[in-house]
Amino acid sequence: MIASASPADVTVLEPRWVVPVEPDEVLEDHAVVIRDATIAAVLPVADARTRFAGATRVALPTHALTPGLINLHTHAAMSLLRGSADDLPLRIWLSEHIWPAESRLVSREFVHDGTLLAAAEMLRGGITCFHDMYFFPLAAADAARAAGMRAVLGLVVLEFPTAYAANALEYFALGRDVLDALANDPLITCSVAPHAPYTVSDQSFRTAVQLADEADLPLHVHVHETDDEVHESLTQHGKRPLARLRDLGAVSKRLIAVHAVHLLDEERDLLAAVGAHVAHCPAANLKLASGIAPIADLCRRGVNVGVGTDGAASNNRLDLWSEVRLASLVAKVAASRAEAIPAAEALAMVTLNAARALGMGDRLGSITAGKDADLAAVDLGALELQPCFDPRSHLVYAAGRQHVTDVWVRGRRVLANRELAAVDPHDVVARARSWAQKVAGGS
Amino acid sequence: MIASASPADVTVLEPRWVVPVEPDEVLEDHAVVIRDATIAAVLPVADARTRFAGATRVALPTHALTPGLINLHTHAAMSLLRGSADDLPLRIWLSEHIWPAESRLVSREFVHDGTLLAAAEMLRGGITCFHDMYFFPLAAADAARAAGMRAVLGLVVLEFPTAYAANALEYFALGRDVLDALANDPLITCSVAPHAPYTVSDQSFRTAVQLADEADLPLHVHVHETDDEVHESLTQHGKRPLARLRDLGAVSKRLIAVHAVHLLDEERDLLAAVGAHVAHCPAANLKLASGIAPIADLCRRGVNVGVGTDGAASNNRLDLWSEVRLASLVAKVAASRAEAIPAAEALAMVTLNAARALGMGDRLGSITAGKDADLAAVDLGALELQPCFDPRSHLVYAAGRQHVTDVWVRGRRVLANRELAAVDPHDVVARARSWAQKVAGGS
Repeated sequence: MIASASPADVTVLEPRWVVPVEPDEVLEDHAVVIRDATIAAVLPVADARTRFAGATRVALPTHALTPGLINLHTHAAMSLLRGSADDLPLRIWLSEHIWPAESRLVSREFVHDGTLLAAAEMLRGGITCFHDMYFFPLAAADAARAAGMRAVLGLVVLEFPTAYAANALEYFALGRDVLDALANDPLITCSVAPHAPYTVSDQSFRTAVQLADEADLPLHVHVHETDDEVHESLTQHGKRPLARLRDLGAVSKRLIAVHAVHLLDEERDLLAAVGAHVAHCPAANLKLASGIAPIADLCRRGVNVGVGTDGAASNNRLDLWSEVRLASLVAKVAASRAEAIPAAEALAMVTLNAARALGMGDRLGSITAGKDADLAAVDLGALELQPCFDPRSHLVYAAGRQHVTDVWVRGRRVLANRELAAVDPHDVVARARSWAQKVAGGS
Repeated sequence: MIASASPADVTVLEPRWVVPVEPDEVLEDHAVVIRDATIAAVLPVADARTRFAGATRVALPTHALTPGLINLHTHAAMSLLRGSADDLPLRIWLSEHIWPAESRLVSREFVHDGTLLAAAEMLRGGITCFHDMYFFPLAAADAARAAGMRAVLGLVVLEFPTAYAANALEYFALGRDVLDALANDPLITCSVAPHAPYTVSDQSFRTAVQLADEADLPLHVHVHETDDEVHESLTQHGKRPLARLRDLGAVSKRLIAVHAVHLLDEERDLLAAVGAHVAHCPAANLKLASGIAPIADLCRRGVNVGVGTDGAASNNRLDLWSEVRLASLVAKVAASRAEAIPAAEALAMVTLNAARALGMGDRLGSITAGKDADLAAVDLGALELQPCFDPRSHLVYAAGRQHVTDVWVRGRRVLANRELAAVDPHDVVARARSWAQKVAGGS
């Protein structure tokens, strides 16, 4: 039994459909009640109107209400490099385009403005939380907080110098400062993010594992993205990247293995056995011709798989609805089974699975009483979404980010009727265009 | 030199960018002049304002103007079955879900209402012409004409009875009647559409080729969609489907080979040698786990490749912007080359290549003076499309159908500021929902 609350604290959402993700069902004639930052109840509309008679009501008559989407891997500030270098393989794209642009441009201001653009884009597409990996995380934190968005910021570690840090020691030192600065932040947390096997030393991986254990954080690593990466590791280390990471203690339930495209059977079993997670980024993997991650097989073996957009420089959008559709479609062909990753399973990937990967499965990822009120309303009333036999099918296969109308993060309505509540879009666009001139000017 | 015209006949479009497709360039500070149904000129804005001083001006200050998109393969009326059966392989999907639903429901009214829904959806996404294959083509023609949309209607041929016809002879007889009825229609033309190697007899293929030759029409055939299809043909006919079609005279420059997923080297060379065309439908091929068509290789060999959405029952959208992005992305991974099908080449697939496949390359598919004024304006000013370094990249990789604001077909503005000019969306949706009850009621 839920006690009545004072009206001012309570909002009752009345969508056409509630898609809680867990359990995998579709509720009609149900309301979702938000009290402060929390989902207070999921109950029949008639009961909600009685129990919460004075509450604020939000009618969502043609909408599906879903958990807020969680983008399990991105480089948010790279939104400023969107479309600056297309149709190139990973190593050339990185070494001849992205890294030179970053070395000219990256600064606190770049990260702030790029992350603000990314946060605004993501919120408009129903994403309430993003798992980031980039420089100057406190600038990213400021931007996410300003937009009212949740973020898990990867404390990046590299061996080579950038505008952010001179060497691995300094990356770690700055990371520890960020952890201190963000302690108890209600919206922003961290992961430890040694960039990739080909950019991080054994010693730094060991330190990263130690830091993740100490601070109880996820370990955020690009791994087995390309065949080249695997072959280079065999040449340099005499073992494949995952074997090397395992030997360094980095393959555990903390690990969020980003990409995980090229995996032997025993590597898939290893990920399952330790309870590691995969952040699947299909658009970037296709666009850079890296390959197709075997996610249907990983799921079958019990690996927890979430989905990420990767950065806008390689996607070129931060659109998790388009990404999850792509994930489901390519999984079917990769597994040669049309039954692979059906709509409901795909929905879990961008919500509950991602929450679990981030260690937040008890607080996020489903519409469950007691969890944080991170929610997205998707209007399935548009002409191009008619008819509708199951909203889960439409969410994955037919709808797009433009159908997201309203978003709540920790109970705050940060998108209302497609208008951002906390961000001035004209300001965001003006900043982006100003940076674009600098990006274009240098190449 | 272009003579001045009376103002009433002339509209001057002033987009931020003109993307003519041919030549492959981006024009800034240029106007596109429409006179009646035709593109009268592409010229600098300053010149247009002088020469066409009294004309209607349409300001498109943040927009890219592209040729209207051409959907090279769909079953428009199947929009009414959107999302009714997902996550199933082709044969089960067809024989246990789609064909039973069709045998219960398909009628002139079903085709009219479904095609109207599809036309409205497609126009809102910048598609000005669709190549259809379905029953009751005159009902589809009525719907397309009512929406102000161009269509090439495949005169379907099957051996088995449907609500439309009892046997192959009757399909052909009805097809000839449709051809007569549509003679000289400015918007609607036809192709001859023997459904697939596994549903059409040798004799019917011969008759179809004869009809296509007589009436100078494209030949519209599903072919090599699945491995099963190829193996069944080997068992039943002792040859692969394309070899059988070749022996029946069906592999020629008239052929639009839909899907073309499973192709031997010599089959690719055959298509190139005769000047046949491929309608690539990546979403349906992935969703039904049929495979990935080798389009980068086909293009390299000189085969003309366009893109189709297939029907909304297998996609589940009629969205050529999402489809062309998918085509480019999967082509890169299938070819193991990130350089494969770059943005400009992808744009040609959904415009000029498709026009050529339909035998309309001289009238459609590029923004060229003298061609029909089939045009789409895409607003690249949205926050999620910032910054923009090349509009071609954004059109393919970052934008979506929701950014299409205005569409012209034969010079008529059929979408204006996202509002359909000729169709009442409430009526379209009401009809779709009414059919949905019948679809759901029978399963």
